[in-house]
Amino acid sequence: MAASDIDHPIAPLRWVGGADGHLVLLDQTRLPEHTEEMVCRDVESVVEAIGSLRVRGAPAIGIAAAYGMCLALGSTHPQDHQQHARRQLREAAQRLAASRPTAINLGWAVQRMLDRAEAALARSPTPQLETELLNEAQTIHEEDRRMCQAIGRHGAALLRHDAAVLTHCNAGALATSQLGTALALIYAAQRAGSVLHVYVDETRPLLQGSRLTAWELCQHGIPATVICDSAAAHLMKEGRVQSVITGADRIAANGDVANKIGTYGLALAAAAHAIPFYVAAPTSTFDLNVPDGQQIPIEVRSEEEITRPFGTRIAPEGVDAYNPAFDVTPAHLVTAIICERGVIQPVTPERVKTVVGRR
Amino acid sequence: MAASDIDHPIAPLRWVGGADGHLVLLDQTRLPEHTEEMVCRDVESVVEAIGSLRVRGAPAIGIAAAYGMCLALGSTHPQDHQQHARRQLREAAQRLAASRPTAINLGWAVQRMLDRAEAALARSPTPQLETELLNEAQTIHEEDRRMCQAIGRHGAALLRHDAAVLTHCNAGALATSQLGTALALIYAAQRAGSVLHVYVDETRPLLQGSRLTAWELCQHGIPATVICDSAAAHLMKEGRVQSVITGADRIAANGDVANKIGTYGLALAAAAHAIPFYVAAPTSTFDLNVPDGQQIPIEVRSEEEITRPFGTRIAPEGVDAYNPAFDVTPAHLVTAIICERGVIQPVTPERVKTVVGRR
Repeated sequence: MAASDIDHPIAPLRWVGGADGHLVLLDQTRLPEHTEEMVCRDVESVVEAIGSLRVRGAPAIGIAAAYGMCLALGSTHPQDHQQHARRQLREAAQRLAASRPTAINLGWAVQRMLDRAEAALARSPTPQLETELLNEAQTIHEEDRRMCQAIGRHGAALLRHDAAVLTHCNAGALATSQLGTALALIYAAQRAGSVLHVYVDETRPLLQGSRLTAWELCQHGIPATVICDSAAAHLMKEGRVQSVITGADRIAANGDVANKIGTYGLALAAAAHAIPFYVAAPTSTFDLNVPDGQQIPIEVRSEEEITRPFGTRIAPEGVDAYNPAFDVTPAHLVTAIICERGVIQPVTPERVKTVVGRR
Repeated sequence: MAASDIDHPIAPLRWVGGADGHLVLLDQTRLPEHTEEMVCRDVESVVEAIGSLRVRGAPAIGIAAAYGMCLALGSTHPQDHQQHARRQLREAAQRLAASRPTAINLGWAVQRMLDRAEAALARSPTPQLETELLNEAQTIHEEDRRMCQAIGRHGAALLRHDAAVLTHCNAGALATSQLGTALALIYAAQRAGSVLHVYVDETRPLLQGSRLTAWELCQHGIPATVICDSAAAHLMKEGRVQSVITGADRIAANGDVANKIGTYGLALAAAAHAIPFYVAAPTSTFDLNVPDGQQIPIEVRSEEEITRPFGTRIAPEGVDAYNPAFDVTPAHLVTAIICERGVIQPVTPERVKTVVGRR
């Protein structure tokens, strides 16, 4: 940790032990009432944890998937059977990448792990594959920590004059290795003496705002007020909010942003009130193969998340529900995208290419 | 009931008995799981039922308050003690009108009841006051029935070419005497052979959309799909919705519309997609004493509606919540207002005055 880094009490996942170790996740479906950890010792449990949102947030599920790849070889398959190891890894990669369709970080992390494995297998003598994979996963994990700190540094100045900001879903420590993306700006701005207050969209259906972001901000000592998602436009009209900041699950080459359902409506409301709308995300969230947001697959989740939240039926038996988990905010509604390399502003294909395209 | 009227299986309130009878309400806090009625035999129980949303919707609470006035004299106070009766009625009027601050129909209905009482007391010999009051309440009730049918007739043609409409909260039979305001258009359009599908905002925090509107549409045999409030803009972008229709709790002289929180954001999203945004409300919802929406009081309700919905805590202990129950949609975002006298379009102070101002 660098001297200028912000310390944060929450980390949603950690690897325990060496190459034959296991992944420990903070089970985010149990928050805020219960702080429970779960242990993943095989790929299947990681796939389940991602699919059921025990670990969520594009960067965090990328890291979880990377560690999931470390669990793919299992203890019964010696690493010297190269073909067998390749098959195991490819199968694991496929299952992990498919566990949620919208966040690009999953595919990105899994591909890095596969590349590292291939590079190792191509070497002679072949190094211990489990160790190579763990090193790569830990590198991804550590890069994410540095990325969050850098996003905070780059973005904090944008919030300098804001008494209150509004955020949606959870793009905080719980969604990353630590600190977060959108919330990294807020933590950094707070340390710099600005941003007094955060309004938190509760974020139906799974309430990541009220359950996770509010909890996380409380842990960090930042005053937070939860609102219903539909109240955001009214708050803007009341003059309560000076900027909006969210994370992202995938960003197209033109700067269109896929993020938690509700982000698009929030961006429309912000534009109507001339309130800046910021997106914070690492460069790994960009998918330059996708020209614009129309090509980003939108995950549609279970109707029961709407009709039977947390086991309580709130809609009549038999009624339909439609539950898209993400939407796409067009680039023209995004004031700036803050990534670990700096601030993309204005959000144009050229600026995206300049900042993200270089290796 | 006129031959052209639409029949509807749901009515949220009825008076049982003569001048010494009582009010029976369908307890809307128990829907859709339980269909339970509650009996009100005094003003206090009507005030409680309105405050806790057992009966809700601007027209319905106006009718409930009118019947509440019938309960004000009580059985122990003979109507010939005129001063005593006046005091009882004024006290009841005050408590009923204050039970919810935003809907103007409350004050409107209660004032009609007071005026009727005064007129009766001024006559010689003074007629039986309880009978006068019940007649007035039943007139208000019957006018509302006719109003709903008229709104449906006037508005149905607006939805003629729409495959699907979106609605927010409940402006249906449950919110009125019968049939509804916004939903009256849908019922009438359906009878005319149009409108295939209704998307229903669940309407946090109290979920009148998923609990009440979805239930009511199912009872009426109209295909309905519940969505999270924050998904509305995404559905518009997907082209799923051809118009939006809501009710209103108070409409200012310039056509600004106070309605359930979330309506304003919905209107912004509709405007961004060039989708017509309709409001259906009786003329009793207009408050011509209020020049614009800024002067409409916005009820702020309990934080627990957000942090502990239906008894389940979903936000960390100690976190703040902000729960405005209404917002104001400026007239320029409203394509048309449909009232029992016709369609106000464009929504301008002049058109409002022309249609609503005349007696």
